[in-house]
Amino acid sequence: MENNSEIKTKKIEFNLSSSFLQELINKIEAKDLFSVNDLLSKLHPSDIAEVISNLPEKNRFELIALENFKINPHVIVELTDELQKEILEKISSDRIVKIINSLESDNALQIIENLEDNKKEKVLTKIPIEDKNLFEETLSTYPENSAARIMQREFAAVPEDWTVGQTIDYLRETSELPKEFLEIFIINQLNIPIGSVPSSRVLRTPRDVKMNSIMKNNKFLIPAEMDQEQVAYNFEQYNLFSAGVVDQNQKLIGMITVDDIVTVIKEEAEEDTLRLAGVSDEEISDSAFSITKKRFIWLTINLLTAILASTVISLFNASIEKVVALAILMPIVASMGGNAGTQTLTVTVRLLATKELISSNVNKIVSKEFLVGFYNGLIFAVITGLAIFVWFKDYHLSLLIAVAMIINMTAAGFFGIFIPVILNKFKIDPAISSSVFVTTITDVFGFLSFLGLASYILQI
Amino acid sequence: MENNSEIKTKKIEFNLSSSFLQELINKIEAKDLFSVNDLLSKLHPSDIAEVISNLPEKNRFELIALENFKINPHVIVELTDELQKEILEKISSDRIVKIINSLESDNALQIIENLEDNKKEKVLTKIPIEDKNLFEETLSTYPENSAARIMQREFAAVPEDWTVGQTIDYLRETSELPKEFLEIFIINQLNIPIGSVPSSRVLRTPRDVKMNSIMKNNKFLIPAEMDQEQVAYNFEQYNLFSAGVVDQNQKLIGMITVDDIVTVIKEEAEEDTLRLAGVSDEEISDSAFSITKKRFIWLTINLLTAILASTVISLFNASIEKVVALAILMPIVASMGGNAGTQTLTVTVRLLATKELISSNVNKIVSKEFLVGFYNGLIFAVITGLAIFVWFKDYHLSLLIAVAMIINMTAAGFFGIFIPVILNKFKIDPAISSSVFVTTITDVFGFLSFLGLASYILQI
Repeated sequence: MENNSEIKTKKIEFNLSSSFLQELINKIEAKDLFSVNDLLSKLHPSDIAEVISNLPEKNRFELIALENFKINPHVIVELTDELQKEILEKISSDRIVKIINSLESDNALQIIENLEDNKKEKVLTKIPIEDKNLFEETLSTYPENSAARIMQREFAAVPEDWTVGQTIDYLRETSELPKEFLEIFIINQLNIPIGSVPSSRVLRTPRDVKMNSIMKNNKFLIPAEMDQEQVAYNFEQYNLFSAGVVDQNQKLIGMITVDDIVTVIKEEAEEDTLRLAGVSDEEISDSAFSITKKRFIWLTINLLTAILASTVISLFNASIEKVVALAILMPIVASMGGNAGTQTLTVTVRLLATKELISSNVNKIVSKEFLVGFYNGLIFAVITGLAIFVWFKDYHLSLLIAVAMIINMTAAGFFGIFIPVILNKFKIDPAISSSVFVTTITDVFGFLSFLGLASYILQI
Repeated sequence: MENNSEIKTKKIEFNLSSSFLQELINKIEAKDLFSVNDLLSKLHPSDIAEVISNLPEKNRFELIALENFKINPHVIVELTDELQKEILEKISSDRIVKIINSLESDNALQIIENLEDNKKEKVLTKIPIEDKNLFEETLSTYPENSAARIMQREFAAVPEDWTVGQTIDYLRETSELPKEFLEIFIINQLNIPIGSVPSSRVLRTPRDVKMNSIMKNNKFLIPAEMDQEQVAYNFEQYNLFSAGVVDQNQKLIGMITVDDIVTVIKEEAEEDTLRLAGVSDEEISDSAFSITKKRFIWLTINLLTAILASTVISLFNASIEKVVALAILMPIVASMGGNAGTQTLTVTVRLLATKELISSNVNKIVSKEFLVGFYNGLIFAVITGLAIFVWFKDYHLSLLIAVAMIINMTAAGFFGIFIPVILNKFKIDPAISSSVFVTTITDVFGFLSFLGLASYILQI
């Protein structure tokens, strides 16, 4: 038990410095276990995980291989899946069994998921049989990223007719409870949760009061097969701290707490950022080669669409040969459309992800973006038209670029929202696939409207 | 008290349908308060907030103006700042006072912040004087977005020498506590927190045990002036449920719970997505005109950079006049560089935001991205060179585009990480300003390398 009334004034946050890292590397290379432990002992498991992530691979393995170096199970939990896999490979199955037995079931399951098949079997035979059965059942019954995979099996629950006093006595006497819990579930004789009482409310209520008279209705029970992103949405929308997880028969089988969900919420929002730029699933520990491989497909698609845009230009090579200014100016129209389209697209993807853009307002919002595109077109038609007149002293060219700008930016506004909405309707992630459609359209429209109008207006 | 043991099987999540919205609008227009209340009564305050956000402005005002319509204070809390301001304008200060008095201090403060100055003064004179002083002190002492602005003043704290029994008796007898609390702070005689005990641990411990023997050290006390993004980082990194907030003298003045932080975490990740695309602070309720205004600056900057890229092209108009294929192909090189640069840029911005890219690994990661850019350049030099040979049957052109591709994609990789890292060093948000630099560089490098090489290789 930590029992120390000294006042801590140190910064709450750990900032990993190059000098700290270098010192640790030196101690690891000197196989100086005592100093390594001393350096790490003051750090929170999350910070140790950060340190380990930043060690060069060679030193990371040397650290794990240090005789008698015991890694804190919670440090492993805080590592990315990729690093977990890497490190678990190097640890004996006996030690992994110890690690698993010391963790709550959600973290233990995560570690089991990250073992290679051979080791997984070995480890499963060595843990208590009832745990083994539960883990195997979860892995075989519920898909990856479902609520069951992130819930913990440990929770506190009492029958509906108990009093506060009975509950407190039970909690004091029972050892098989989670270390901490935010609420106590009230269950009926079928193990079906009918409500819950926050721990603090139990604390504040006299012993003779019935639990079911102070309980909140359990409106937010999570089906075990629900996707974790949906779970995260519910936690966020309804400000939940914890929620019970039920199986198909509505029986309570676990609980999810908000700390497990914070990461999901953040990753979901981040995922969109990365997907919109054509990146996904990269880890900072990936090699240059593996990153190149991961980004290859997106760049290939972009190459194809760029060639498509070029074929549009090639339709007008006669015009370009006569008026070379067309070649000079055509990227401006395409670029403005591309940017306006990306703005609309990005906003739309976020509105879809946060469920703000829904069937009841989609027509209104699409019309609005169309209008924004048109306004933008008008504004930049004037600005660009003037700029080009100053540059080339040719009002034909000015008129030409102005009209093309209106057409392309209006198209950008419309397709910037239309495409992600349609993809979303067909259950395709709009973040991952919209960019390529939208920028292709704005390129093609940009070149086509500008060069097409040119061959008409300039009679070439 | 909700006391209902009926099993709920309804979907936990509310999906706002067009028909529900239309029905509500009809009832509002008919001034049928009874039916309006009936429609809304089954919904969670968060869902009512969603419904109100989706009402046309006119109906929203009609709803608020309905005689005897009482909006649930928690519904107001769940609205965006913009809608809060809009609605608070329409509510009498007497009703606002009632709303504020019924809320916990963090939510009450948020509402006060969103009142216009006149109304704010009026309201402040009508709330209890001690609350008024606290609110005014917070508003004048601590900046917007600081921990003090999002903390609640209500918390449970007991002296260090109390037993569990004393604590429970105190909690049962004292009414001025938050409705729920996740932990009980242990404070010394100077009001300085020295530790905390989770509510569930108090529940599980015999009455005669001293609180300070079961407490956890309070490593994570939040200084009141800390920025909320920093607070969010700490909650996430250290898996906190709640944390005490202290003033300059280390005295405990409030607490922050994770549900207040979830939104901050999410918004922070989202902000980057939007900023990278040149969008910021848009609300779904904004008009087309106001959105156009907000996106104007970014598009103007893009126009300037596009014109800059065009001037690069114009340097080579003699070459283009002779070989029109150059005009057809030049967008390909620029486009590939732009995409590769955006990939690197987006990854870098996320790594900086999550503090994974730090001084101790920056050289390694920059070199890696440079290498990724070079690999990409090689791969797409081959692919594009072949494609162009098939199209134009001219190996000069193929060679030309291949070399330009290597140069531009390597530059894209390098500047895609170098620019955000440098901006970050100068405390400029890399998400908001990097895109324009990176795409300008890839455009200029793209046109310059392709057309420059052309005039050299093709001797034109």
